[in-house]
Amino acid sequence: MTFPVVGMVGGGQLARMTHEAGIPLGIRFKLLSDTPQDSAAQVVGDVVVGDHRDPETLRAFARGCDVLTFDHEHVPTALLRELEAEGIPVRPGPDALVHAQDKGVMRARLDELGIPSPRHRIVAGPADAAAFAAETGGFPVVLKTVRGGYDGKGVWVVRSAGDEAAHEPFRAGVPVLAEEKVDFRRELAANVVRSPHGQAVAYPVVESIQVNGVCDTVLAPAPGLPEAEAVRAQELALTIARELGVVGHLAVELFETRDGRVLVNELAMRPHNSGHWTQDGAVTSQFANHVRAVLDLPLGDPRPRARWTVMANVLGGDYPDMYAAYLHCMARDPQLKIHMYGKDVKPGRKVGHVNVYGDDLPDLRERAAHAAGYLRGTIDE
Amino acid sequence: MTFPVVGMVGGGQLARMTHEAGIPLGIRFKLLSDTPQDSAAQVVGDVVVGDHRDPETLRAFARGCDVLTFDHEHVPTALLRELEAEGIPVRPGPDALVHAQDKGVMRARLDELGIPSPRHRIVAGPADAAAFAAETGGFPVVLKTVRGGYDGKGVWVVRSAGDEAAHEPFRAGVPVLAEEKVDFRRELAANVVRSPHGQAVAYPVVESIQVNGVCDTVLAPAPGLPEAEAVRAQELALTIARELGVVGHLAVELFETRDGRVLVNELAMRPHNSGHWTQDGAVTSQFANHVRAVLDLPLGDPRPRARWTVMANVLGGDYPDMYAAYLHCMARDPQLKIHMYGKDVKPGRKVGHVNVYGDDLPDLRERAAHAAGYLRGTIDE
Repeated sequence: MTFPVVGMVGGGQLARMTHEAGIPLGIRFKLLSDTPQDSAAQVVGDVVVGDHRDPETLRAFARGCDVLTFDHEHVPTALLRELEAEGIPVRPGPDALVHAQDKGVMRARLDELGIPSPRHRIVAGPADAAAFAAETGGFPVVLKTVRGGYDGKGVWVVRSAGDEAAHEPFRAGVPVLAEEKVDFRRELAANVVRSPHGQAVAYPVVESIQVNGVCDTVLAPAPGLPEAEAVRAQELALTIARELGVVGHLAVELFETRDGRVLVNELAMRPHNSGHWTQDGAVTSQFANHVRAVLDLPLGDPRPRARWTVMANVLGGDYPDMYAAYLHCMARDPQLKIHMYGKDVKPGRKVGHVNVYGDDLPDLRERAAHAAGYLRGTIDE
Repeated sequence: MTFPVVGMVGGGQLARMTHEAGIPLGIRFKLLSDTPQDSAAQVVGDVVVGDHRDPETLRAFARGCDVLTFDHEHVPTALLRELEAEGIPVRPGPDALVHAQDKGVMRARLDELGIPSPRHRIVAGPADAAAFAAETGGFPVVLKTVRGGYDGKGVWVVRSAGDEAAHEPFRAGVPVLAEEKVDFRRELAANVVRSPHGQAVAYPVVESIQVNGVCDTVLAPAPGLPEAEAVRAQELALTIARELGVVGHLAVELFETRDGRVLVNELAMRPHNSGHWTQDGAVTSQFANHVRAVLDLPLGDPRPRARWTVMANVLGGDYPDMYAAYLHCMARDPQLKIHMYGKDVKPGRKVGHVNVYGDDLPDLRERAAHAAGYLRGTIDE
């Protein structure tokens, strides 16, 4: 066998960083991107520009690859089943990926497996959502379209029976899932990677701090998490990966409740924002292990290289020229690891992240927050 | 200022790894490569295929870049002076780079600076080389063409007055430098990076173990090197960088003599094989710092992340399918960091390297040597 071609569908930052991680392996990396300006398309050598929802475009792209994997969950399941039937390895496969594409399917399957989730039910309309609220202890409840959401999009918190937000989710014409609004202490994420031959590795469980529904900071490992609870969360993620037949990276977003339970919030079957810290903080990054998994190569060591690693997302602000901010950020902190995505700055858009690692968690949090804020333009000293 | 375009001349593995290191910075990376199959051309998005010795090709390429830098030393000095005169930032500049291109110029300049070198003299022919030998304690002497050598090429060891090798160097039609053959204890390398505004960082001094004139293994830091001697070697490299006006990465290859002196062997003004360990072993890699330097950004922390890092080069052997060897190598050592260059396997050709880091130097050396040997095909278990 010669060096294989990994085809990745989607030109976002996850593909960009997967390419970066694949370069040392000597593999060929091929990208299907919506536009030549997409984050990954700027840095990848072999780019096909085309629409991943078009069967012929996707089929032609896939035929040039030894294995197909994904930057996002937006390729229709039926289309992936066709490609698999034609003999193209799709990793993760459609039967696994559907659980990251459809929250209704995901909840039903986790229930079967006895994996704890927030209480939930598919609801038919605002009145049914109110009935769900009454059954589960009252408002607020969370409504989610089963497909198409990310970063707080496709999710509504309904605070009362008369809340206007109760009507919004039903306008998209896809089923709507109602979930109890969990009174959580914090959000955690358990990241694991699994190979076709069944090997799996678990990264340390992290704390994910959200601001306005978007991940702001990740602390690795989650501070103060008892070892037994961390292991339980890792086992839960490994169980999901095995039972759903996931190949590649699986992120399990979790709520840690005030009464000490852990409930599954969301699944993602690709490298994930909660795993970006691994680029500088782990022996093997989530991106490198995703590539190894989809190629069915032995996985790399997921252990941390430092006591603590802190990741902070860089969001777009009012100030468009982030490069000008490099001088101050780099001079202030020579250990700062900047990861920018090549995206135009728009307010609130994720355009990069920073990692710092070391022994002093408060110091690391200050440095990560400072760099992210300075790049965004909300801190000017 | 928007994100700048760094143009790199030469499509070898150094450009490949510089691109990899530049991706997180969000910069644009543009490559001038001899062929579309070159190591870097396989993985870079923006590639111009053309001859770097052709003035019009180079000029057109350079005009699309904010700064020009190099994977190799083969662009004629005069041509770089023209580009500089046209206002294109060339880093390192021609007045610095000539010292890495021409060993005669380099030796003369180091003499002026009082930097210790092996005794040396430009010689006119085999008889003159014999006279040089007589002046400096007899044969063997080393003859080098002042331009065009690398990895043992362009270097001849002449063992006696009648040695056939004494005639070879004079056939190339370029000046020939005679040097005493230093009775060294080992070879060291001092790697530093310098910015246009004068900031500089020094990596730990490493030991470089050569086999048949080609770097085989690098130990970082150099075991048993007294702190004072290490600092002297770093200061020597920083002095050379400053006095020659180097911008970017400078590798100073050194002989450590049996009587405890350090002599300069060669200079390279680009990321260097003796610095590959920094990819996994230092806070900031030589490649990332080279990019930061040529853009005049503050430099990253050069300190090591582990007690020891060992790099072993992977040379081509008789066995062409290195990818097949991944299964065993990765399963045997989940901490192994493989860096392959996408090059066809030819016996003796550098096609990749591996890094391992940790606390136990003998264990790391065994693991690096095993992986390099297994990939090459000289170890089969």
